[in-house]
Amino acid sequence: MALHAVILAGGSGTRFWPLSTPARPKHLLALLGPRTLLEETARRLRGLVPPSRTVVVTARAQAAAVRRALPGPGFSVLAEPRPRNTAAAVALAAARIAARDRDATLVVLSADHWIPDAAAFRRTLRAAAARARAARTLVLVGVRPDRPATGYGYLLPGRRAATVRGAAVHPVAEFTEKPGPATARRWLRDGRRLWNSGIFAWRAAVFLDEVRRRLPALHRVLVASGAATGSPRALALAYARAPSISLDYGILEKSDRVECVEAGFRWDDLGSFAALHRRLPKDAAGNASRGDLVAIASRGVLAVAPAGHRVAVVGVRGLAVVVADGATLVLPLDRSEEVRRAAEAVASRRR
Amino acid sequence: MALHAVILAGGSGTRFWPLSTPARPKHLLALLGPRTLLEETARRLRGLVPPSRTVVVTARAQAAAVRRALPGPGFSVLAEPRPRNTAAAVALAAARIAARDRDATLVVLSADHWIPDAAAFRRTLRAAAARARAARTLVLVGVRPDRPATGYGYLLPGRRAATVRGAAVHPVAEFTEKPGPATARRWLRDGRRLWNSGIFAWRAAVFLDEVRRRLPALHRVLVASGAATGSPRALALAYARAPSISLDYGILEKSDRVECVEAGFRWDDLGSFAALHRRLPKDAAGNASRGDLVAIASRGVLAVAPAGHRVAVVGVRGLAVVVADGATLVLPLDRSEEVRRAAEAVASRRR
Repeated sequence: MALHAVILAGGSGTRFWPLSTPARPKHLLALLGPRTLLEETARRLRGLVPPSRTVVVTARAQAAAVRRALPGPGFSVLAEPRPRNTAAAVALAAARIAARDRDATLVVLSADHWIPDAAAFRRTLRAAAARARAARTLVLVGVRPDRPATGYGYLLPGRRAATVRGAAVHPVAEFTEKPGPATARRWLRDGRRLWNSGIFAWRAAVFLDEVRRRLPALHRVLVASGAATGSPRALALAYARAPSISLDYGILEKSDRVECVEAGFRWDDLGSFAALHRRLPKDAAGNASRGDLVAIASRGVLAVAPAGHRVAVVGVRGLAVVVADGATLVLPLDRSEEVRRAAEAVASRRR
Repeated sequence: MALHAVILAGGSGTRFWPLSTPARPKHLLALLGPRTLLEETARRLRGLVPPSRTVVVTARAQAAAVRRALPGPGFSVLAEPRPRNTAAAVALAAARIAARDRDATLVVLSADHWIPDAAAFRRTLRAAAARARAARTLVLVGVRPDRPATGYGYLLPGRRAATVRGAAVHPVAEFTEKPGPATARRWLRDGRRLWNSGIFAWRAAVFLDEVRRRLPALHRVLVASGAATGSPRALALAYARAPSISLDYGILEKSDRVECVEAGFRWDDLGSFAALHRRLPKDAAGNASRGDLVAIASRGVLAVAPAGHRVAVVGVRGLAVVVADGATLVLPLDRSEEVRRAAEAVASRRR
C-alpha cells in the first residue's frame, strides 16, 4: 500500500510569544533540542513515509521558512491562501494526493508535537494505517492520560473491534471537548478515556467522502470544483469561500466511521509554556531552562533566553521568564494559556 | 564661612544588578529621570557649594565614569586605592580639605539619594552647617519616617538644644541600627525617632579630632602619617593598612558631640528595587516602569528595560522585572534585598 503523510504546519504563533510570532510559529522553533519541531516531525517519518509522499500544509507567509526547516529535498509544501482551520487544510492535501493516487492512505500529523520514541510512533502509525486501509474507517490515535489535562479533547473507546499488528482497535463511542478540572480528574481515575492526539490515518477517498457528507459546502468549493488541484487563483477563490472549521468539530465528531488505536508512545502537544516546562529536564527544585538560568530560592521556573542572555530569578515560584527578540515575558506557568493576551496587546500597539 | 561638600560615590553595584555592576554602580544610573543620581546630587548643591569646593570620593575603577557624570568641570575626584568603607572615605576627604583650609566646614552627602526638593535640601544643609560651625558638633540630618522602614538606621533626638536658621537642633540620645518590623511600626506610631539619612555637616577639624579619638588606627595610618595628602603610593599603603569600618558604627554611634536637625525635604536612599518602585509614577494598578511595559492582570510590578526592549507581564503581583546588558532579573519586590545573591552568583560563575 502507498502510505502518504500530511503534516499540518499552521498556527498563529501566539502561544509561545515572544519566542513565536506570526512569521515564526511554534513548529519553526527549536523548543526542546537543536532542531525545530517541524524538522523533528519530518525526521520521525523516516522509514515510514518518504519525503516524496509527504505534504506539508502551511500558511503562505510561512512557506519559505517551512521549506528551509525541512530535512532535505523532496517534500511537497502546500501554501494555503488564507487560514481556514484544519478541515480545509486536510481536505486540500487529501484532494491533491488523491488526484495522483486514488488508492492513497494518509497519516495526518501536527508539526509541533513532542514524541520522544520515533520507532514506537511508527509502529502505532503502521497499525492505524493498516486498519484505516482495510476497514475504510477514520482512525484516530488516542493517548492514555497521565495527568488531568484540561486542554485536550478526549475520546471514549467502545468495545474492541479488532486487533491489527498487535494494536487494539475500538470504535469511538464519544468525543468530548476540553473538560473542566473535576471531570478531567474523574476521567484520569476511571481510566476509560484517551486524549485525542490529533494524529490520524485514513484513506484519502474515505476522508473526502466524509467531507462531502459532513461539510458539503467545503467539499463543493474546494474538492468538487477542482480548485484543490487547480490554479493558484482557483485555490484562492475557493479558500475565500470555504468555511473555517476544525477537523474534529466538522468531521470526526459527526462521522459514524471513526475508530481509535491507543498510542504506543509518549506524546505531548507542547501547547503552552507549561507543557514546555513539563518536557524539559529540571534541576532538583523543578527549574528548567533553555539558555542560561541562575535560580536562587526559586522553584518550578521555566526560563528561555537566547545565547548570551542570562536569566536570574530570586525567590519566585512557578513562573515562566521568556526573553526573545527585544521582549521579555513573565507569567505564572499555570496561566500559560493567557500568553496570547500579551501577544495580542503587543500586536495591537504596533498597529 | 567656607562651606565644602564631600560626595560619597562608592558602592559595589550589587543592589541594582543587572542595571548596576561594579563598573557602573547605582550613582552612575539614571534611575528616575534623564540624569544619573550622581549628576542630580552635584546639581542639587548649586547655590550652596561651588564645584571648586566639592570633592567626590569614589573607587579607582569608577573614577573616569564619575568625572564624565559630573555636571561640568571644577569638581575634585578622589579615587580610593581600595574600598575601606565610609569612615576612611570621609577622613580622606576631610584631611585633604583641611590641608588647604583649616577652618573648612563640610557637608557630607551620598551620591545616590532621592531628594526631589533641592531648595529645601539646601535650606536644611545651611542650618546644619551653621550649627556645626558654631557649636563644633557633628550634625546629622534626620528624616521623619513615613513608613515602618527596616532598612535604615534610626536616631532618637533628645531635648531641643537650639534653633538655627529656623531649624530645631537636638542632641542625639540614641542610635539604633536597622530595627525589626514590629519595632519599626512602633517607632512610626510614637513619632519620636528619625531616620539617619547619611547626610552630615561638621567642621573638618572637629571630624578629624573625632577620628583620632574613636578610630585611632585609622587616624594614625591615614591622617597623622600625612598619607591622605601625600603621594599615591603613600595613600595606597595607608589604605592597605586602614581598618574598614563605617562612619556610623566607627564614629557617630560612639561620639558624644553628635546632634541632629530634621530634614525639611523628602528623602529616600533608593537602596533597592522596592525603593525605586516607590519613587516612580505608577498606573492605576500600581505598576511602574522605566521603559516599555505591557501589564495584563498584574499589580505592583516594576519593569526596567533599555530602549527597544519590551517587558510584558501577565497575572503577576509585586515583581521586579529588570533587563540590562544581556541579563534579565525577576524577583519579588519585597525580596529586593536579595538581589545581591543573584549578582554574587553571576559574578562567581564568571570567575
